[in-house]
Amino acid sequence: MNFRTDLALEKRENLSSCEVDGVISKREERKGVVVTTITVTNENGAKALGKPVGKYITLEVTPFMKNADLSDGRIEVLAEELLKLLPKEGTVLAAGLGNESITPDALGPKCISLLLATRHIKKELAKSLGLMPLRPVAGIVPGVLGKTGIETSEIIEAVAKKIRPCALIVIDALASRRLSRLGTTVQLTDTGISPGSGVGNTRTEISSKTLGIPVVAVGVPTVVDGATLAFDLLESTGANAAKALEKLGDHGRERLMMVTPKEIDLVIDRAAELIAMGINSAMQREMALEDIIAIVK
Amino acid sequence: MNFRTDLALEKRENLSSCEVDGVISKREERKGVVVTTITVTNENGAKALGKPVGKYITLEVTPFMKNADLSDGRIEVLAEELLKLLPKEGTVLAAGLGNESITPDALGPKCISLLLATRHIKKELAKSLGLMPLRPVAGIVPGVLGKTGIETSEIIEAVAKKIRPCALIVIDALASRRLSRLGTTVQLTDTGISPGSGVGNTRTEISSKTLGIPVVAVGVPTVVDGATLAFDLLESTGANAAKALEKLGDHGRERLMMVTPKEIDLVIDRAAELIAMGINSAMQREMALEDIIAIVK
Amino acid sequence: MNFRTDLALEKRENLSSCEVDGVISKREERKGVVVTTITVTNENGAKALGKPVGKYITLEVTPFMKNADLSDGRIEVLAEELLKLLPKEGTVLAAGLGNESITPDALGPKCISLLLATRHIKKELAKSLGLMPLRPVAGIVPGVLGKTGIETSEIIEAVAKKIRPCALIVIDALASRRLSRLGTTVQLTDTGISPGSGVGNTRTEISSKTLGIPVVAVGVPTVVDGATLAFDLLESTGANAAKALEKLGDHGRERLMMVTPKEIDLVIDRAAELIAMGINSAMQREMALEDIIAIVK
Amino acid sequence: MNFRTDLALEKRENLSSCEVDGVISKREERKGVVVTTITVTNENGAKALGKPVGKYITLEVTPFMKNADLSDGRIEVLAEELLKLLPKEGTVLAAGLGNESITPDALGPKCISLLLATRHIKKELAKSLGLMPLRPVAGIVPGVLGKTGIETSEIIEAVAKKIRPCALIVIDALASRRLSRLGTTVQLTDTGISPGSGVGNTRTEISSKTLGIPVVAVGVPTVVDGATLAFDLLESTGANAAKALEKLGDHGRERLMMVTPKEIDLVIDRAAELIAMGINSAMQREMALEDIIAIVK
Repeated sequence: MNFRTDLALEKRENLSSCEVDGVISKREERKGVVVTTITVTNENGAKALGKPVGKYITLEVTPFMKNADLSDGRIEVLAEELLKLLPKEGTVLAAGLGNESITPDALGPKCISLLLATRHIKKELAKSLGLMPLRPVAGIVPGVLGKTGIETSEIIEAVAKKIRPCALIVIDALASRRLSRLGTTVQLTDTGISPGSGVGNTRTEISSKTLGIPVVAVGVPTVVDGATLAFDLLESTGANAAKALEKLGDHGRERLMMVTPKEIDLVIDRAAELIAMGINSAMQREMALEDIIAIVK
Repeated sequence: MNFRTDLALEKRENLSSCEVDGVISKREERKGVVVTTITVTNENGAKALGKPVGKYITLEVTPFMKNADLSDGRIEVLAEELLKLLPKEGTVLAAGLGNESITPDALGPKCISLLLATRHIKKELAKSLGLMPLRPVAGIVPGVLGKTGIETSEIIEAVAKKIRPCALIVIDALASRRLSRLGTTVQLTDTGISPGSGVGNTRTEISSKTLGIPVVAVGVPTVVDGATLAFDLLESTGANAAKALEKLGDHGRERLMMVTPKEIDLVIDRAAELIAMGINSAMQREMALEDIIAIVK
Repeated sequence: MNFRTDLALEKRENLSSCEVDGVISKREERKGVVVTTITVTNENGAKALGKPVGKYITLEVTPFMKNADLSDGRIEVLAEELLKLLPKEGTVLAAGLGNESITPDALGPKCISLLLATRHIKKELAKSLGLMPLRPVAGIVPGVLGKTGIETSEIIEAVAKKIRPCALIVIDALASRRLSRLGTTVQLTDTGISPGSGVGNTRTEISSKTLGIPVVAVGVPTVVDGATLAFDLLESTGANAAKALEKLGDHGRERLMMVTPKEIDLVIDRAAELIAMGINSAMQREMALEDIIAIVK
Repeated sequence: MNFRTDLALEKRENLSSCEVDGVISKREERKGVVVTTITVTNENGAKALGKPVGKYITLEVTPFMKNADLSDGRIEVLAEELLKLLPKEGTVLAAGLGNESITPDALGPKCISLLLATRHIKKELAKSLGLMPLRPVAGIVPGVLGKTGIETSEIIEAVAKKIRPCALIVIDALASRRLSRLGTTVQLTDTGISPGSGVGNTRTEISSKTLGIPVVAVGVPTVVDGATLAFDLLESTGANAAKALEKLGDHGRERLMMVTPKEIDLVIDRAAELIAMGINSAMQREMALEDIIAIVK
C-alpha cells in the first residue's frame, strides 16, 4: 500500500527493518524541539525509503493549532539546521510555492510575505542605517501553473539565472500520512522538491541537479489523504487493511479527498511565521530577532 | 457508537429499521436537486433519531468544490423550501453564526455579507427606486462567545426583542459524519439549533421555544470528525469497529481532530452565496435574481 | 465655512478667540504622547465649539504609517485616559462601529477582533488558570445599516439591555479636517457619538443620555473631505477661500469625495491594535501587556 | 509647477496651446465609453507632453465606486483597444505590478488573479474540452522591490527570456493629478512603463526598448498627490498658486501624502475585474464572456 506522504520520517516507518543499508537515522532534542535527521547515503537506501539520496531533517514542534510563543527555541533550532545546509555566504533566493487563495496551500506565499528581503539594500545604505552587515536575500512567489500558465520550476530557473544566487530555499505545504503530523512538524531537505518525480515528469523538478546550486526545501504538512487515516486505524486493529480498502467502492470519493485540520488558518499563519523567521534569523545572524520582527511585520 | 453529526439524514442511516414510528421520510428530485424531507412527528421518533420533533429538509447539490454556476436551479429550490417554513409576510431576521476568522466556521458571517438587507428602506424610497414591494429583512453577525464574551443566543434574543421579526433564520456550519457530505449538502430545519442540547445547556438553544417565533436553521456540513471516517471504513470491512476504536490509545489526538476539505475556501464562498441568494430570492419574490446579485455583490 | 471634522481639537482651532466661556483646554506630554484635554463646561462653550458638553481628550502619537513599536508608552497613556472616564468596576461592553469591508471604515470591527473578551469566563475558571481577577468585558460588531437593515444604536441598545454593562466603549473611524491628522491622532470623549446630530436624527445617537450608562467614544481620523485640504491652503495664502470654493462648479465631485492615505491598510491595522490594547490594558490592570497580546493575537 | 500624473490626458491639459507639433488627439464615444487617443509622433511632442513617443488611449468609464454591471460595453471597448496594440497571435505574458497588501497599489496582482491563463493547456486537451482554439496567455505577479529584493523589471525580463512571449501587458495602479479621475479612467499605452524615467534610472524601465517585444501598459489612477488638489483649486481662483505652495512650510507633510478615495476597496476590485476581463476577452475572441467569467471567478 503506497500512501502519499512527503515526510521522510513517515517513509521510514514503512521500512520492514530498522537497519537498512543506506539509511542512517539520528534523533536528538534541542531547546524543546525533537530533531530527527535521516540521511540516505546510497541508491539502496533511496530505493528502500522511496526518497532520493540526501538529508532529511524533521523538527517536531508544539502544534501550531496551540496558542504558543514562537520564540520558544523553535526559530533558533530551525535557523541552525538551515545554516548546516546552506553556503556560508552569498545571495540566497527564497521561493514560496503554492496557491495563496487555497488556505492549506498558502504556506509558501505567506512565508515570503514575512521574509526580510535585503538584496536591494546597498552596503552603504545598510551601514548608514546601522544595519551592516546584511546578507543578500531575495524572495519570489511564483504562483501555480493553473493561474499563471507557467511551471513553477520555469519561473524559479528564470529568476535564478538572472540574479545568480548561491543557494535556493523553496517553501511548500506538504502532505503527510498521519493527521497527527499536520501542523506539528517541519521538514528540511537538501534534495529539493520533485513534485512530478513519481510520474516521470522531470520538467517540474526543483533541485541542485536542475539548478546547479544547493536547493533546500522547507515544508510543513498541512493536508492528509482521507483514506490514510482509515488505513492506519485498520492496521492497528489487526484487520487486513489493504483488502479492506479494496472493498471501498462507495467511499471512493472520500478516498481521494484531501483533508486539513479545522484550524488550518492558524496553522498556516504560525508555520509561515516560524519558517520566515527561521530563514531571516539564519541569514542575518548579527540582527536580533526582535529587530527583524519589527521590520517585517 | 455515537458519532457527531448535525444531519438528520445521517442520523436516519443509523436507525436499525427503516420503519420507525414517528419518523417519516420523503425523497424527490426537483431541478437537479435531490430533496429529502424527514419529519419527526412524535417523541418516539425524536428519541429514535436523536433529533427534536420537526422537519428536516436536505438538499443534495453539485459539490461546492466544483466550478459550477449556482443558478442551475439550486437557488430556486432552496428558496421554495425556505418559503414553506416561513410566515408569508413580516420582517425576517437572519443571523450568521460562527467565527469568520476560521474558514470552515465562517459560513454564517459570509452569508450575511451577501444578504439583501431591506428593513431600513422606507416604502416610499423603495417605490421611488422602482423596487416596491420589498419584504423587510435584517441581518446580524453575533460573533462567537470566545471573541465577544456574549452567548450567541443572548445577542439574537436581544436583537429579536428590539426589532420584533416574524421569524428568524440562523445560518451555521455543520458537522457531518461522512467526508462525502462535506460541501455537497444543505440542511434546513424548523427546529432551530441547540448547540448545547446534548450537554444539557439550554441557555444556548436558539429555537421557536426560546424566541417565540418560527426559527429556521440553514446549514452546510464543512467539518467531519477524523475518527468517523475510520469507523465507517472499519464497519464496512466487517471488523468490530467499536472495539477497534477503543484500542486507539495512540491515535487519541487524531480522534479529536476535526477535519475539513482542502478546498474549504471555495466551499465556504459558494455555500454562503447559495444560501444568501436562496434567502434573498425567497424574501423578494418579485425581484429578478440578477438584480439581487447586482445589488449585493 | 463649516467643514466636517469629528475632532474637538480641530473645532477649537476655528474659535475666533482663545478664551471662550465654557471651553477649557489643557495640554501636557506624557511618555512621548501629547495629551490635550478640552472640557466643554456649559452650553455657551458647546455652541461655540459645536460639540456637546463633556470631555474631549486627544492623544497625538507617532503616525501609524510609520513602522514603530506600539509599546512605546502609547498603550499605557491611552489606558490611563480610558480609566479616568470609566467606572472603576463592573462589566464593560465595547462596540466596534463601521463597515469592515471598506478599509478606512474598518477600525471598529478590527479593534474588536483584538479585544480580550472575558465576560464569559467564570471566576472559578479564571482562578484555576491563574488569571484572576478578570474584569468582565464583552464586545460586539453591530455592522452598518446598509448591510444589516438595523440601526447601530438599535443593536447596541438591545445588547446593553440584555447584558447590563456599567459602561459602553464605542470605537469608530473619524473624519478630520486636515490630512496631517489622519493616522496620527486618537480622540476619546465621554459624550458618546451622535452621527446624526447635525441632521436632527436623534434616533442614531449613542450616548449616556440614550443608554443611561457612561459612554466613551474612541476614534482615529482616517478620512478627510477632499475640499478641506484646498480650503486650508487657500486660507493660508490670504485668498478669500469661501468665495473661491463657491466657484468650484467643475470640481463639485471632488469636493464631495472623502479621501484617505495611500497607506490606509497599515493605519487601520495599527490604530486598531493600539485601541484594543489600550482597552485590554485598562480593563485587566493586573495582567502584563505581553500576556494579553499572546492571548488575543 | 510639475505635479505628478501618469495620465497623458492630464499632461495634455497642461499644454499652453491646443495645437502642438507632434501631439495628435482624437476623441470618440463607443458603447458609452469616451475614448481619447493621444499620439505623440515626434520628439517635439514628447518634450511638450513630457511623455515618450507612442500612443496613449484613455477610456472614461462609469466610476468604479458605483455599483454598475461591468458588462455594459466597457469590457468590449477595452478588448478592442488592446487588440489594436498587440500582435494578432502568439503567447502573451501579463504582469501585475504593485504591492498586494497596500489596497490602492494592489490593482496589478488582483488583475492577474482573474486572468485566464492558458499557456499550459495543450492543444489536444483544449480541443477535447471543446475550448479550441485557445491563445496562449501567461501571467505573473512580480511583487515589489522592498518585499522581494529584486527589481520588477529583472523578474519580468527573466521570465520573458524563458517563455519568449510575442508581447507583454503590464498592469499597474497610476497616480493622477485630479481626484475626479480616480477610479473613473483606464489608460492604455504602447510605451511601456518607466517608473524611474524622471530620475534617470533606466534599470527599471519596462518597455519594447528593453524587452524587444511590444509592451502595452494598462492602468487605472488610484492615488492623487494631496497637494495637486489644492493647487488646482488655487489656480481656479486666480491666485498665484505656485507662490502659495511655496509658503506651505507647515503643510509640508500633507503635500507629500498620497491620498486615495474612501471606497478604494471597491475601486480596486472592479477595476481589476474590468482589465482582466478585457484582456481575457481580447485573447480568447471565440469564447463567450460568460464562459470566461465562469472559469476565472
